[in-house]
Amino acid sequence: MSPATATQNHAEIGNTLLAESVRQRIRSGKLTGHTSGLADQHVQGNVVILPQALATDFLGFCQKNPKPCPLLAVSKPGEFLLPTLGAHVDIRTDVPRYRVWRNGELVDEPTDITALWRDDLVTFVIGCSFSFEQALLDAGLPLRHIEQEKNVAMFRSNIATEAVGPFGGPMVVSMRPFSAAAAIRAVEITARFPQVHGAPVHIGSPHLIGIRDLSNPDYGDAVDIRDDEIPVFWACGVTPQAAITLAKPDFCITHAPGAMLITDLLNQDMSIP
Amino acid sequence: MSPATATQNHAEIGNTLLAESVRQRIRSGKLTGHTSGLADQHVQGNVVILPQALATDFLGFCQKNPKPCPLLAVSKPGEFLLPTLGAHVDIRTDVPRYRVWRNGELVDEPTDITALWRDDLVTFVIGCSFSFEQALLDAGLPLRHIEQEKNVAMFRSNIATEAVGPFGGPMVVSMRPFSAAAAIRAVEITARFPQVHGAPVHIGSPHLIGIRDLSNPDYGDAVDIRDDEIPVFWACGVTPQAAITLAKPDFCITHAPGAMLITDLLNQDMSIP
Repeated sequence: MSPATATQNHAEIGNTLLAESVRQRIRSGKLTGHTSGLADQHVQGNVVILPQALATDFLGFCQKNPKPCPLLAVSKPGEFLLPTLGAHVDIRTDVPRYRVWRNGELVDEPTDITALWRDDLVTFVIGCSFSFEQALLDAGLPLRHIEQEKNVAMFRSNIATEAVGPFGGPMVVSMRPFSAAAAIRAVEITARFPQVHGAPVHIGSPHLIGIRDLSNPDYGDAVDIRDDEIPVFWACGVTPQAAITLAKPDFCITHAPGAMLITDLLNQDMSIP
Repeated sequence: MSPATATQNHAEIGNTLLAESVRQRIRSGKLTGHTSGLADQHVQGNVVILPQALATDFLGFCQKNPKPCPLLAVSKPGEFLLPTLGAHVDIRTDVPRYRVWRNGELVDEPTDITALWRDDLVTFVIGCSFSFEQALLDAGLPLRHIEQEKNVAMFRSNIATEAVGPFGGPMVVSMRPFSAAAAIRAVEITARFPQVHGAPVHIGSPHLIGIRDLSNPDYGDAVDIRDDEIPVFWACGVTPQAAITLAKPDFCITHAPGAMLITDLLNQDMSIP
């Protein structure tokens, strides 16, 4: 083994251990909040858990809407381990905070869903913009919500998703402000990450996609926008939660916005050449 | 030879013949105007011809400013044939309309410079946005100036080039209006064409780059911009002409804006993977 290979392997093992060690803290209830910046080389995922009877339609919805819903993993019914995302990942315990939905209403936000688990539940893990944020930071682009220690601002747009069965409705978008030159670089960079939302869906005037007030996001936190900056909007993995409030499935579990599943996958591997 | 190879070779020969047949019409004085849309699979070039005494500085200027001045070819002093751009290319006759500059002043716009040729002249051919326009059209993006049968709108911006010797001054940019979604696609597509200006240099508010009035371009023609559109600005190969008006070389020849050198190179080969 060459020294370079040894170093690389060491780094990879170290990184995987880091992801697992953060998950252990989440699993034991010590971490119950946002995961932004945790195990930051690793892919984080949006989570949707649905009864098998609705899983086929939801799978179709994700496949028809790959920008807001890029699928990283789909489980078999009843499976709570997700070995393709990490050797020890248990979806019942490894998300810091869940949302439990009954008939489209949010009824609870527990930190563990072991007691709610059923043999007919299917788990969908959907890519998250945190993966491309690392690439933006690596390119020297500032991210305002990170500077301001906030959750990213997210809005229900008037861009319609393509409906499948009961799932449809508006696309949720995340917004990041940039100077024009940085916005162009951000388009270039995120276009290389199709598995984690890819290039933006809108740039410039918010009202053109049905957003009236950038200071009043539907999810996450408002951030400052400077006079020489332009708002840039990406498809967001919270889109399924908007679809669920419309579809009103009798039972559903998601992650709480910002409190993601941390996987062993590496952000750098999400980039196409 | 496989049938596929035979077809490909046939197409290549056909295309090269098309470029040469257009050049023959230019060489014979039958074509003296804009070259937009002519031999449209082929790379067209901006042309700057300078005395050898200034060539080193101008070469440095191009190398320091690759976005406005991506070099496709540089001749040896006195060479008027450019075999790397096409077997029969003669820079003295193959541009539809030239501009002759003396001490920074435009003094003539001939269609042939054979009588002006000197053994100390060095030719620079610089990539042109026409190459990526074909890729934009192929992706289904509308180009307003082509719809309106106009030359593209070009502006002197307040973005400074990096000066080398007497060459410097403002970057000239070309502007194309797009819907936000099309603007994002246009960034993605043109980023793959670094040899022909690459990704845009600005998007959105013109005043941020010192442009006061989009309806009054410094070169080319104004085009309509709709309410839901955003202006997108690319570095432009006319930038050297702005530099020449400032550097005031005793003698210089360029192409007339829009009246380009048509080469045998294929636009598709300008794209990185």
